[in-house]
Amino acid sequence: MKKAHIISIGNELLIGDTVNTNATWIGRFLNSEGFSVERVLTLPDTYDLLRDQLSDSFAAAELTIVTGGLGPTHDDITKRVVADMFNSELVTDPNVLDHIKSIFRRRDFEFSQSNADQALVPNNCSVLFNKKGTAPGLWFSENGHVIAVLPGVPHEMKYLVENEIRPRLEGEFPDRPAKTLQYFHTAGVPESTLSDNVIGDLSEFLNNGLEVAYLPNAGGVKIRVGYVGEDPDTAEDQMLRFRKLVLERATDVIYGEGRDCELAAVLGDLLVKQKKTISVAESCTGGRLSDIITNVPGCSRYMVGGVIAYSNEVKMEQLKVSKKDLEKHGAVSCPVALQMARGAAHLHDSSIGVSTTGIAGPGGGTADKPVGTVWMGFWINGNHFALKAVLTDDREVNKQRTVMIVLETVRRTLLGITHFPYNLTPVYP
Amino acid sequence: MKKAHIISIGNELLIGDTVNTNATWIGRFLNSEGFSVERVLTLPDTYDLLRDQLSDSFAAAELTIVTGGLGPTHDDITKRVVADMFNSELVTDPNVLDHIKSIFRRRDFEFSQSNADQALVPNNCSVLFNKKGTAPGLWFSENGHVIAVLPGVPHEMKYLVENEIRPRLEGEFPDRPAKTLQYFHTAGVPESTLSDNVIGDLSEFLNNGLEVAYLPNAGGVKIRVGYVGEDPDTAEDQMLRFRKLVLERATDVIYGEGRDCELAAVLGDLLVKQKKTISVAESCTGGRLSDIITNVPGCSRYMVGGVIAYSNEVKMEQLKVSKKDLEKHGAVSCPVALQMARGAAHLHDSSIGVSTTGIAGPGGGTADKPVGTVWMGFWINGNHFALKAVLTDDREVNKQRTVMIVLETVRRTLLGITHFPYNLTPVYP
Repeated sequence: MKKAHIISIGNELLIGDTVNTNATWIGRFLNSEGFSVERVLTLPDTYDLLRDQLSDSFAAAELTIVTGGLGPTHDDITKRVVADMFNSELVTDPNVLDHIKSIFRRRDFEFSQSNADQALVPNNCSVLFNKKGTAPGLWFSENGHVIAVLPGVPHEMKYLVENEIRPRLEGEFPDRPAKTLQYFHTAGVPESTLSDNVIGDLSEFLNNGLEVAYLPNAGGVKIRVGYVGEDPDTAEDQMLRFRKLVLERATDVIYGEGRDCELAAVLGDLLVKQKKTISVAESCTGGRLSDIITNVPGCSRYMVGGVIAYSNEVKMEQLKVSKKDLEKHGAVSCPVALQMARGAAHLHDSSIGVSTTGIAGPGGGTADKPVGTVWMGFWINGNHFALKAVLTDDREVNKQRTVMIVLETVRRTLLGITHFPYNLTPVYP
Repeated sequence: MKKAHIISIGNELLIGDTVNTNATWIGRFLNSEGFSVERVLTLPDTYDLLRDQLSDSFAAAELTIVTGGLGPTHDDITKRVVADMFNSELVTDPNVLDHIKSIFRRRDFEFSQSNADQALVPNNCSVLFNKKGTAPGLWFSENGHVIAVLPGVPHEMKYLVENEIRPRLEGEFPDRPAKTLQYFHTAGVPESTLSDNVIGDLSEFLNNGLEVAYLPNAGGVKIRVGYVGEDPDTAEDQMLRFRKLVLERATDVIYGEGRDCELAAVLGDLLVKQKKTISVAESCTGGRLSDIITNVPGCSRYMVGGVIAYSNEVKMEQLKVSKKDLEKHGAVSCPVALQMARGAAHLHDSSIGVSTTGIAGPGGGTADKPVGTVWMGFWINGNHFALKAVLTDDREVNKQRTVMIVLETVRRTLLGITHFPYNLTPVYP
């Protein structure tokens, strides 16, 4: 496979002010284009360091993608570094200059010398025309090795990768192998249980060139499978057999396949298919559940509405939670979760109502109800139950996990799957 | 300054399945501890590459922090690499072994040989005892250079950095300079307007050793200032003068100072101080606004509740939005936003009600109301107005920006600041 390096430039990345999501995005792009990404480097805006490393990468990897340091200010030196590396002269590109001027006219900003300097490009590179911003990308190719330099602004970088880099890869590296990756997305089962008990021994596949990774994230655990051997026929055969085995052993906990798959979107499709509507009543998740549901475009087909019931008054007045139960059992309790879910469904006239009430933390725990105690209520076409989970001492993690358990519980129930996420036991009214 | 390198190990980082937030967190830690982070490297689990690069970093930087590749499976090779680098023998650490066994007993999992192997440590390093997991950290020190190896699981890594690395830095590198950074957090003003018009020319400060960066993010623009010159007296003097100037020129748009500062938390403090309560009615933000408000611990002092009013029925029934106005002007309109805000305040009996209604995208736009059109309503102690913004074609960005504008508008209004975020013009009923 062709080797690729990714180099991200900027002090804000090194001192931890900005998370390097550009490198993640480019890594994924290169991987899907059949490159083996062998290193990601983040460097400061320092001439000598940049020049050394860019030269090293250009020699070691067939393709190097560099982002950042192309802006108009004094600390942006990437263009100078590559121009010197390739003994270029900097010349004004008239198309780029026109484009920059038109951006400034449209925004009614003053045009200065430093803006004009952005149209200066090395005379021995291909210019990657940047419709989305003022800094053009640069493409240098020599003896089968390429270095592409892009602005660090994420949407400009992505535009240039999709529209200028991708088409050039065909011409420059025509003989790349197609790399197939399979993904299986699971929810409601811990990583070790999934690998040791649900999926179990895979040595036969590993010995035949498959590489299997379990990747836990906020929403569950993703299984990634790729073929790293040499024989394309074996690859296809092994991948098919692996998929069959995984679906046999883990079908109930897999909510989707493919590289990108969101549980909320899968549930949304299911709700549309089954002609159901959903509404929510949130206390400890405070809006996160509604937010995740409404991140899915087109969700207005099934999402009716919700209540953020932070105070007991809202729980009683809008959701018809009994005052007696609130006083006797407290807001974080099974009867309150049950009543909130039913109350949400009735208030919104939806087929499904779900609720959350818990101690998100970091404070507010007691001996009986430690931080992380969460009750979730469900009213699914009249099927009425509650689940209790004891999560972590981290507010953010507790919000995420609660949302995941609620969505996965609705998904499984709608599909008639009778065991619950994390083997939680339902409590009926 | 002492140099530091960060090395992250794992294929999932290179192919873009996981964002490298560990490196961001460690970069921030090292920076605050007075190290100059000169490079962040991400590498695959490949013996030769790792050995070469770890040796290079150990020689080039005083401190190298390595994460990942310490797990129990066949692809975790980091321990072997460092053991070979330092000609170590692997020996069982009895404390670590006891600790791992106790974890397995507690979870009632079966204990296997690969688990026991996690207690094997190089005989010539200090063991960083990992209370939070099964893989111990390793600390090698030679001639003033240190390499520390940590597990890649974020909460284990953070625990070891805080509790095992930080105390050792004092002994190993006692003479580090204190590096002072100042941060100013702004909202509701574009980066270029902030730098060119609000703050303006800073050449005097830049010539005297200050480094100023404008860092845009989802919530606004952060100004970071640091001293990169040589003279500690100048540093203090310049930083004080800079702060004075920034506060003079930009005080209205700065919601806070300090490295970490969340607009929702600042607004929360203000609500507590002014003894106000808030409730929300969300359509296009779909719960994001409530979620951000309730991410702040202790928010139940001022957050009463909210309505996710995705359907027109909910808008009419719960928020008392007029059916006539919905039909005449549509759900994304000034009268509806106004009525939603007032409706939320009345329903929840809160001093403040805010609302959002818009076309989040990517679909659903019209010629009159393109994707990104958002109306926001405000009822602030009876002060009743609406703001209109035309944002982007990206659903996620539109949710983020709308939330920021709403929170910043409430903050400014409570403080008697009379101009609105992005110079939006209020519309009164």
